[in-house]
Formats: sequence, structure tokens, C-alpha cells
Amino acid sequence: MNQGVALIIGAGADTGGAIARAFAADGYHACLTRRPRNLNQLGLLADTIRDAGGTATPFGVDARNETEMAALVARIEAEVGPIEVCVFNIGANVRFGIGETTPRVFRKVWEMACFAGFLTAHNVLPRMAERGRGTMIFTGATASVRGASGFGAFASAKAGLRNLAQSAAREYGPQGVHVAHTLIDGMIDSTFIRDNVPGVDALRDEDRILNPDHIACNYVHLHRQPRDAWTFELDLRPYGESW
Amino acid sequence: MNQGVALIIGAGADTGGAIARAFAADGYHACLTRRPRNLNQLGLLADTIRDAGGTATPFGVDARNETEMAALVARIEAEVGPIEVCVFNIGANVRFGIGETTPRVFRKVWEMACFAGFLTAHNVLPRMAERGRGTMIFTGATASVRGASGFGAFASAKAGLRNLAQSAAREYGPQGVHVAHTLIDGMIDSTFIRDNVPGVDALRDEDRILNPDHIACNYVHLHRQPRDAWTFELDLRPYGESW
Amino acid sequence: MNQGVALIIGAGADTGGAIARAFAADGYHACLTRRPRNLNQLGLLADTIRDAGGTATPFGVDARNETEMAALVARIEAEVGPIEVCVFNIGANVRFGIGETTPRVFRKVWEMACFAGFLTAHNVLPRMAERGRGTMIFTGATASVRGASGFGAFASAKAGLRNLAQSAAREYGPQGVHVAHTLIDGMIDSTFIRDNVPGVDALRDEDRILNPDHIACNYVHLHRQPRDAWTFELDLRPYGESW
Amino acid sequence: MNQGVALIIGAGADTGGAIARAFAADGYHACLTRRPRNLNQLGLLADTIRDAGGTATPFGVDARNETEMAALVARIEAEVGPIEVCVFNIGANVRFGIGETTPRVFRKVWEMACFAGFLTAHNVLPRMAERGRGTMIFTGATASVRGASGFGAFASAKAGLRNLAQSAAREYGPQGVHVAHTLIDGMIDSTFIRDNVPGVDALRDEDRILNPDHIACNYVHLHRQPRDAWTFELDLRPYGESW
Repeated sequence: MNQGVALIIGAGADTGGAIARAFAADGYHACLTRRPRNLNQLGLLADTIRDAGGTATPFGVDARNETEMAALVARIEAEVGPIEVCVFNIGANVRFGIGETTPRVFRKVWEMACFAGFLTAHNVLPRMAERGRGTMIFTGATASVRGASGFGAFASAKAGLRNLAQSAAREYGPQGVHVAHTLIDGMIDSTFIRDNVPGVDALRDEDRILNPDHIACNYVHLHRQPRDAWTFELDLRPYGESW
Repeated sequence: MNQGVALIIGAGADTGGAIARAFAADGYHACLTRRPRNLNQLGLLADTIRDAGGTATPFGVDARNETEMAALVARIEAEVGPIEVCVFNIGANVRFGIGETTPRVFRKVWEMACFAGFLTAHNVLPRMAERGRGTMIFTGATASVRGASGFGAFASAKAGLRNLAQSAAREYGPQGVHVAHTLIDGMIDSTFIRDNVPGVDALRDEDRILNPDHIACNYVHLHRQPRDAWTFELDLRPYGESW
Repeated sequence: MNQGVALIIGAGADTGGAIARAFAADGYHACLTRRPRNLNQLGLLADTIRDAGGTATPFGVDARNETEMAALVARIEAEVGPIEVCVFNIGANVRFGIGETTPRVFRKVWEMACFAGFLTAHNVLPRMAERGRGTMIFTGATASVRGASGFGAFASAKAGLRNLAQSAAREYGPQGVHVAHTLIDGMIDSTFIRDNVPGVDALRDEDRILNPDHIACNYVHLHRQPRDAWTFELDLRPYGESW
Repeated sequence: MNQGVALIIGAGADTGGAIARAFAADGYHACLTRRPRNLNQLGLLADTIRDAGGTATPFGVDARNETEMAALVARIEAEVGPIEVCVFNIGANVRFGIGETTPRVFRKVWEMACFAGFLTAHNVLPRMAERGRGTMIFTGATASVRGASGFGAFASAKAGLRNLAQSAAREYGPQGVHVAHTLIDGMIDSTFIRDNVPGVDALRDEDRILNPDHIACNYVHLHRQPRDAWTFELDLRPYGESW
């Protein structure tokens, strides 16, 4: 039960939270981040983890901020323990045509979905490489590999994150650090979906939306892979999804 | 310990054998096929499975033969049990330039690596669909997604198998049948490699070649995925592999 | 007007015919093939080319037949001239579910759409390599890169052809031979479409179906590319196509 | 000779310049941009175009600046003419490991290679859509589709640009605007290469480096494609290039 730290950047109530709980259940100390304004909710997630017998520390951090991210990683490594697993899980799904996307929105989506991922990798991967071990997983989406109409900003940022992950995998893999990228393709059974999609109970009953715990289970699987057989990329979608 | 049948088409001594052992250890009756001339070796694999507490039946079959494959699947379903997992694992890696590849070789490589996969899918998937459950996994390689110089026949056949797997996934997924495809990228710790590659012990010691048991572990993981979060494709390579 | 031979394998009434006319207009002697039973129609195409001031020779050939293809290429090179351009343009679009696709159909689709392409490449490319020049273009489709539901046989064969083309490009490019592959994505203004799709005139008026002459223009462009700037793959689709 | 405007964002001395000359030779008024500090060189390019009988206007612009880009496009449309062709050609190839890439560099590379492309598309595409015609071409690279070791920042930005281009193509294609993306794979015969790569003359003599004029010829070809047969993506590489 002292396996080091699992750092979850973007530990929201749904996928990020499920991933944090899964690694905590596996014996890692879960370091959780969300924006400072969501620190209360992050505390609830930490409580849930502790109630289940795990350990967790919440951090209110703007993951787009270079100084904050450098300080966060340094502090965790100094005060909590070595980061053995790091998951970058911030999304920023917006839907606008390219003409309607303001430059400010385009930049902000990139800062959240791609630049913050770089800051995470930039601070975490060299420390893992020094130890010759560790896993970093980037959460991707269909938009990572396909620029659909109406998703210019999101698809651009997600593709940027994916190619960054590829470069990271090729750069750090030979140093013993496992870098992986997932392609989540379909609706997740999240608060947002439950509040906004009619008929979500029927979808859940028929397994037509992704259960965050089942996503998390694949992240744990990726981390457990021995280094002679590492996966860079896997997709995840409900059986009934059209793709 | 009575979970139905895991049918492994191409249960060779290495990857196919490891996959068979893994599903047998998980409680499936392993139905194993190789060409009739390798039936003795297949018997040894079945013995190994039984020694470990599992159950297995070896079948000498030419997987390229339409009649034999139809009969095999019908017989297993009638006499052994429902096929819950099916793995198509026949390779046919040859290396010739396109000018040096005879039409006979080009056809034969396709028959082994692609047509036999179709015959398997054609006979197994509709039965799984009737039951609304089951998993079929196709073993792919780097050549499945990249036609390298000197690999025209192999890369052509493997790409044909991959697109077949994609069509199968899209066709049978909504019917509750999980179709997946793996991309094995790197040397496998196999009899062939041990006999032909100098320094293989050092490679193994440093985890630079794929351990067949670790590959198998991912096949079991794919089969266990709940149907709201299915993977179609994952790659597997040693940490030190250049890609 | 004596630029050598443009060999069009699969010189049907529509795309193949347009490609043949375009290269003939560019000064190449068009060698045209279709199955023997279509030799009459092929003669009409040759007449059209001659009426326009070009030269052409029709050949009734089963492109899936190893002996016929070897003889065809040898005869053209001996009696007509060096093959400077070769286009493989045989399709075999069928639509069946995997359970409904008979092994005979699966094999036949592959023989037409992939194996015949190999026979062409196998006989033509080494001769081009000896001369250090020449262009071979394979006609692909959306199915070349995507296995859709209901297209298992076709998508498998087309993916096999594409990876073969990739291997050929990597193998023969450094020898001065340009190998390219196109992705035709959309309905072509063909006899079949005119006979079977209602409202085809409106589609044509709005440029919503591919004009074979416009496809051909891209093949000529590929052939004209200087060898310091070669394209391996380009896609072609109507502006209104969803993709 | 009054065909409207070809706007080249990033009209450097090599590829961008060649593209500008090619469209000017085709009768378009070439509007050229580079950073203000390179305005002198841009003036020389405009002179070259005029000497060849074309027309051109140089603009010193920071393409990463939202206000400058909006003003540029508005001014050209008001004072010069409708933008019929727009080429986004700014690169930012840097090579650093992810640990060595400063956040400032990562952001700057993205601003140049991706954000500036968005600003261009955001300002130009809606105007083209209103007219129901026009072509926008984004210059990509191998890094657009592959994150190699040591290229995290560049590959991330180029992938972001490519997915943006895909979204733009799907969004504006049905409105009659042709959006395309090129994959330039290999060394270009540029000032930088001539100054830094030994033996460049031999490479040029053997056609082993891309001639900018030959790249430009493909951009003109893309623009000329009738709207029933548009290419989204084509790659360009020297015959001897390993890929």
C-alpha cells in the first residue's frame, strides 16, 4: 500500500475521478488536481478515496500555468513521493464552426487540452526517466484522429496532444517510461451527460454509454503492462457505437 | 471452470500457445488448431494445458480449407461447447521483393494470413451473434498498417486481415460480439527467434523482445472488457523498440 | 507523339477509359485490357482514342491469370514499346455481410482487386526499374483505408492492394519508378450509376459525382511529377461529399 | 490576368516564394506576407514577380496577431480584390526533447505553425464561403502525422494544423470552398539547406531534395481541380527518400 504517487491532472467527477479511485485502490497515493474553483469537489473525491481505504491529496491548480505546474510536481515529489503514474485527463470539448470560433476560444481550448498536457509531460517525464520507470497516460478522443465539421478548435488541440504523446513515447520509452494515449469514442456516463441527454438511463441499462470505472480499468491495465509488451494506443467505445 | 470454448486458430508453440494457456487458465476449454503435420506438437500443448489443470482438444486442420473450417466450427459447437473466444493467430511472414515474389507465394501468404482469417470469422461470428456475445481477436503486426520494402506479400495480406477485422467489428459489435485486432510490433521470444537471432538471451534479460505470456495477458484483458468499453485495436511493443 | 506505352489494366467504359484517353492525348500508345468477353467494348474505346488522333491497342486478358499477365507484358514490351505508365484500375465492389459472403466470393473479390494488381506490379515494375523510370498508379477507394460494415470482402482486398502499393513505392521509388495510389471517395459518373441511381442528372449538374475525365487529369498529373517531388497518395471526392 | 488575389501567408524565399510566383504566373495578384522584419526580402520577391510580368503586394504582418490578421484580410478584400487562393505556409521546425523544450518555445511553435493558420482560416474561409468558391491550402510535413522523438513541439503544432484543416475541409467543402493539406516529406532546396547541409549540390543534381517550384506546381494543380474531384491531402517527397 505504499507504491508511490498516481498524479491525475483533471480529476473531475467522472472519468478522472474513476481513474483516481482505481489507482488508489491499487495502492497508489492519489494526487488530484482541478482548477482552484473546484477544490471543494476535489475534496469530496479525496474523501471517497479515503473512505475506501486509500490515500489522496487534492491540489487546486491551473494546469495551463507553467509556474504552478512546475511547483506542483516538485512539491509532490519532495513531500508525497515519486510519481509512478501520471494521467493527463483535461478535455475542452467545444463545438463551433471555424468562422464562429473566436481566437480567444481557440487558444483557450488548446491551452487546456494540449498545452497543459505538455506542461505535465515536461515536468513529470524527466523525473520518471531518471528513475527508469513510470507510466504517463494521455486521454484522447475521436477528435484526436479526425477533424470533424464544427470541431476545429477541439480536434486541433486533441491532435496536438496526441502527436505530443507519440513524441513522448518514442523519446521516453527507451528510457523505461511507458507513455500511452487512449481514444475514448462515445458518450461517457458523466454528470454532464446525465443532466443533458434525455433517456440516459435506458442507454446505461443497455451499456450504450461508457462507464468511467470501465475506462479506469484499462488505465490500470496499461500501467501494469510489463515493459516488453507496452501499448501506446487503445480505443474504447460502447458496443453499439457507430464509428 | 465451464466457461465454454476458446478456439485458437494457429496455436503454435509460442504466441498462439501462450494465448491458449491463458484462456485455459481462465476456465475455457481450449480448442487448438494447427496444420495436420504439426498435430504432435499440438498434442504437447494440450498436455501442458491439462497438466496445469485446464482442458484442451487439439485439431489438425488446414485453416485455408473452406470445408475443413466449416466442419471444425460445427463440430466444436456440437460436441465441445459454444465458442466464447476465438483467436486468429496465423502469420506468414516472408520477405521478398515484389519482383522476386512468385504469384504462388503471394497467393499462399494471403491464404494463410488473410483468407483463413475470413473463413474463421465467417463460420464463428454468426454463431456468436446468435448468442449476442463472444470475442474474436485477430493478431496483426506492424505490416498490417505499413507496407515496407521487401514485405509486399506479407503487408498486403495483413492489411487485408485488418480491414476485414474492422468490417467485422462494425458489423458484429452492435450484435454484442467483440471483434478486436492487435498490432504486435517487435520480435517475439519464440523458438524461431531463439534459433536464429544471436544474443537473444541478452535481449530477453533486458525485456527487449516480447514475452508471449505478456501478449496473451492482453488478449484475456480484451475478452474481459465489458461491452460498454470495448477496444478494437491495441499495439504491443517492447519499450526499447524503434517505431 | 511517341512517348511509349500507357498500359491500363481494367480499361472499362468509365474511369479506366477516361484515363486511357487522357494518356493517349498526352502522346502515349494506350494498351487497354479488359476481360475477353468485353473485347468488343474495348475495341470501341480504342476507336474513340484513334478518332481523337491517338493510338491504342485492345487486349482481352484475364488479369487474375498469372500466365496471361506475364505474356501480355512481355508482348507489349517486345511489340509495342516500353511501358512508361501503368494504371491498375480493376475494382470489385460487392456488398455482403461477412456471414453472407461465400468463401468463393471473398476469394474472387481478392483475385480481381488485389491479386491482379500484384500480377501487374510483379511483371511491370522490374522492367521499369531496369530503365530507371516509369509510373505505376493503383486506383483505390475509401474502402482501402476503412473497413465498413457490409464491405468485408471489398475492404479487405482494397487494403491489400494499398499496402502492396506502399511496399512497391518504397521498393521501386529509389530505383526511379514512381508508384502512387489514389483514394476515390464518392460516386463516379459511370454507366452503372447512370443506370441505377435516380436523379443522377441533378447530381451531375451540381458536380456532386466524380467526372471520370477529372479523375484522369490527376493521374496524368501524378505521372508528370518530377522525381524530386512525388506523391504516393491523393484522395479525390466531390465537394459535397460527406467524409 | 485579373483573376483575383492569391494570398500567401509566410512567403519566404523558398517554398512560399515559389508558390507565390506560380500563382502570379497564373494571373493572380500575389499578396505576400512575412514578419515586418523581413519586409525588405519580401519586397525583393514582389519585384521578381513583377519582373516576370505579374503583380504583387508585400505586407509585413505578424500572422500570430489576431488584430493584424483580421485587418490584413479586410484590407486586401477591400483594396486589392477577392481572395481566391490562400496558402498558409508558416513552419517552425525546432528540435528539442520534451524535457528541454521550454513552455515558451512550445507555445511559440504552436502560435506560428498552428494558431496563425487558424487566424488565417478564420478570416479567409467565411469570405470564400460567401462567394461559394476559393481554395485554401495548408502546408504540412511528415511531423503532421507522426510524432518523432525530439520533435514534440513541432509535431504537436503540425498535427493541430492538420486536424484544423480537416475540420475546415468538412465544414467549407459543401459550401464550395476547397481546403487542402500537403505533407512535404524531405529536404527542400532552400537557403537554409544550402547554407547548412554539406553536399547539397550533389543532392540537387540527383533530384534528392525537393525543388520549391515543383512543390508550387502541385499547389496550382490543387487549386485548378474542378469541384467534383477535390483532393484534401497529398504527400510530396523525393524518389530516394526513405519513409
